[in-house]
Amino acid sequence: MNDDASPMRDERDLFHARYAREMGPLPTNPVIDAMLAHRSCRAFKPDALPAGALESIVAAAQSAATSSNMQGWSVVAVESAERRKKLFALADGQTQILEAPLTLCFVADLSRLARVADAIPHPREGLDYFESFLVAAIDSALAAQNACLAAESMGLGTCYLGVLRYKPEEIGALLDLPPMAVVTFGLSIGWPDETRPTFIKPRLAQSSVLHRETYDKAQALAPVADYETALDAFNKRARNGQPLWGLRSASRVATPESLNGRQHLMATLRRMGFALK
Amino acid sequence: MNDDASPMRDERDLFHARYAREMGPLPTNPVIDAMLAHRSCRAFKPDALPAGALESIVAAAQSAATSSNMQGWSVVAVESAERRKKLFALADGQTQILEAPLTLCFVADLSRLARVADAIPHPREGLDYFESFLVAAIDSALAAQNACLAAESMGLGTCYLGVLRYKPEEIGALLDLPPMAVVTFGLSIGWPDETRPTFIKPRLAQSSVLHRETYDKAQALAPVADYETALDAFNKRARNGQPLWGLRSASRVATPESLNGRQHLMATLRRMGFALK
Repeated sequence: MNDDASPMRDERDLFHARYAREMGPLPTNPVIDAMLAHRSCRAFKPDALPAGALESIVAAAQSAATSSNMQGWSVVAVESAERRKKLFALADGQTQILEAPLTLCFVADLSRLARVADAIPHPREGLDYFESFLVAAIDSALAAQNACLAAESMGLGTCYLGVLRYKPEEIGALLDLPPMAVVTFGLSIGWPDETRPTFIKPRLAQSSVLHRETYDKAQALAPVADYETALDAFNKRARNGQPLWGLRSASRVATPESLNGRQHLMATLRRMGFALK
Repeated sequence: MNDDASPMRDERDLFHARYAREMGPLPTNPVIDAMLAHRSCRAFKPDALPAGALESIVAAAQSAATSSNMQGWSVVAVESAERRKKLFALADGQTQILEAPLTLCFVADLSRLARVADAIPHPREGLDYFESFLVAAIDSALAAQNACLAAESMGLGTCYLGVLRYKPEEIGALLDLPPMAVVTFGLSIGWPDETRPTFIKPRLAQSSVLHRETYDKAQALAPVADYETALDAFNKRARNGQPLWGLRSASRVATPESLNGRQHLMATLRRMGFALK
């Protein structure tokens, strides 16, 4: 891994790889190293997961904190080839859904709490508020990040799928979701195809993201320019042809149409049973 | 730890502790064990964090996936005693904010991307849509879960603070947040006070949360009753006097007023610069 032309060159020092710069000595341990080593995997071998891997991954996900222990999320594990094909067709043709043996569909799920309240019976008007949807979406994300790391700790590759918000109603129908439940994103999981490797992607400097005591509006742009240079070098080494970070990011949010259907998300969620008051 | 009266009794088997039932052999490793061992800590010693701990924790947080690498989040580290006092006053008197030397305020931050686009200049109308707020909120949660686990892997205790959404404008003013930035939740971090320990809290059975291929609406209520019994036993051993899980959860969402100010969140976010179209 001493080949200077390889994006892997810097992965010996995980902090360096993450920021594409010297970070000085920082405390670490095998758990932190596992997080620093994250990279999205978009090319999978068809091999099955180890026995019990799904259950371990879900146990890790359920171990994440959840607001007031309300556990406002669920997960649908899609493994059948037929349903993966249908999911792929609804998800902008992301091939990792076809290649990986498992795609976890994380669900912001207020429907279970509604069923529980109705069975008591107990009023549950608060579920009709935007806050309750947000709690469920955040719960699903906290759980998913544990699931992602659990899979990676077994040597598996993962890829988040925000594209599952392009067509939430169709995906809800495919997974037979009840009202007040929506897929927030997916996570494809499988064995990485080492012939098509991916690498640790540099992030913005800490000074762009970490603020002390108060938010420093002035500090944000200078480190961004340095970051764009570092990320551009990474993209060239990884052979990802992309415009500079700022331009690429801005183009993702340039117009309503740039959101690829997700500009209608609020109206869609209302049709799916979230009143979002 | 063989005292049957202790909630710690079952923590030798982390899967058993997490579900309060036998789970059979499941694959694990030190990273998964670290996630399974999570418990919220609400009592801290005043001792300072290790040198570099904050920077390592933030590096772990930035290593989480982020939608399209847009990195739509920031974090404000509150350490000064004076600001912790003010935050405490705005956060429903959660004493962990006073006790812990550090509270991280996670921010759904579209303002940086707005500044970057404006500097090009490039249109950024998509930021005015609900979807963009949701991306930023989810990004902040993925990052926070890594931060939480990084801190715990160093032996530190953590506690999420959803109460930071009770008064988002006041907290935004305290942290000098720009428009299009809001604290989604906090995370207090410090050394656990072992004289006031907390324990691994059981979660709903996997069969309540994990669905195969499609969402099984029928399976949800029977395992919930078993869970309530197990959680009630846990609460009694941990000396947390609480009603049964379903009733407690339903009471949290019974009426708009049960949301403690958060029923106004959508209007508040609009005043804070998120158009939420």
